[in-house]
Amino acid sequence: MRPNLPEKTVERLSQYRRALLNYQFLDHAWIYSHNLARILKTNAANVRRDLMLIGVSGDVHKGYDISMLIEKISEAIDGTFTENVCFVGIGELGRTVSEYFASTDSKLKVAAHFYFDEHIPARSEVPSYPIAKISEVIKQEDILIAVLAVPREFAREISLLLVNAGIMGILNFSSVHLQVPKHIYVENYDMITKLEKIAYFMKRPGKK
Amino acid sequence: MRPNLPEKTVERLSQYRRALLNYQFLDHAWIYSHNLARILKTNAANVRRDLMLIGVSGDVHKGYDISMLIEKISEAIDGTFTENVCFVGIGELGRTVSEYFASTDSKLKVAAHFYFDEHIPARSEVPSYPIAKISEVIKQEDILIAVLAVPREFAREISLLLVNAGIMGILNFSSVHLQVPKHIYVENYDMITKLEKIAYFMKRPGKK
Repeated sequence: MRPNLPEKTVERLSQYRRALLNYQFLDHAWIYSHNLARILKTNAANVRRDLMLIGVSGDVHKGYDISMLIEKISEAIDGTFTENVCFVGIGELGRTVSEYFASTDSKLKVAAHFYFDEHIPARSEVPSYPIAKISEVIKQEDILIAVLAVPREFAREISLLLVNAGIMGILNFSSVHLQVPKHIYVENYDMITKLEKIAYFMKRPGKK
Repeated sequence: MRPNLPEKTVERLSQYRRALLNYQFLDHAWIYSHNLARILKTNAANVRRDLMLIGVSGDVHKGYDISMLIEKISEAIDGTFTENVCFVGIGELGRTVSEYFASTDSKLKVAAHFYFDEHIPARSEVPSYPIAKISEVIKQEDILIAVLAVPREFAREISLLLVNAGIMGILNFSSVHLQVPKHIYVENYDMITKLEKIAYFMKRPGKK
């Protein structure tokens, strides 16, 4: 059974695991919380607190056993079944993510990519379908999570299509507030705001 | 001159402006902080504090003059010059963002899209170039901001190409920690972690 973890802890556990996977093939490898903290740019106390929440405490002298830690994190944050994900209109970026999931024995799998244009992403292992097939494919492939990256004017309409087809979680890149039922878990990412933030904070060469 | 604002304030000001732009063509339109707060799902005190930081306070009876507010936010967070942005490997999503900037008299402009495959995005107004042309085009078009959305194995190499060509701000979607000089402003987005978070928190129909 999965513990009831805070959102930020789940995010950090996901990041710890990703960092640890780079070391998994070392024999009997151990890592100290302060080293893990350094990789993730946080502090050791945070790392220890997060790991306490999933019932893992380190050895005072050796730190944490890396393969045990990967296993415990997976038990804590992964579901029992493989979870299918689809991308709606994102291209290259979707391919990157699906390759990562495929290469790491992840419980997430990118099962479909829906596209607007006639341009099917090249070299992709993920089956691609035109947007018109959303409802059919999502039901057929038992997909619960969608990454929504479509132009603003289509975002609301397509989000309703997704929800009606059975999607329960949406990663929303459309910069539009989606009106979906409360039981749908939506995580928003607002690229426009992030770009305006970068433009504000970056240094400019030779300009005032 | 732009005030020295906290990161979160800049993000929220960008979001306030985006919401207000929907109302800009009303004559003499005013908005209360609690209404603006409701649109952005925050509270009125936060809105008033953010606006105080850019020297704007509302009328007790009428709230804020919408067109004045848009103008003041733009003065506070926009630069003097148009800032060019490029996308490296993102497809559809880049088009969405570039259309928004083009349609709203923004100080940001998507000036180039670099692609890996032979698939040039259809219907795009943004000039597209193969990855090999990064250095040349960035210098030529005076681009300072890049959205980096390439497969993990290319991320570090391409980020160095970008920096050497003069990029000062990077929105990094590659889920890889970039090693760039300190004066480069990097904003990271980790899609893999967000998907693992959604899989953890979403409700599952009929599964335990």
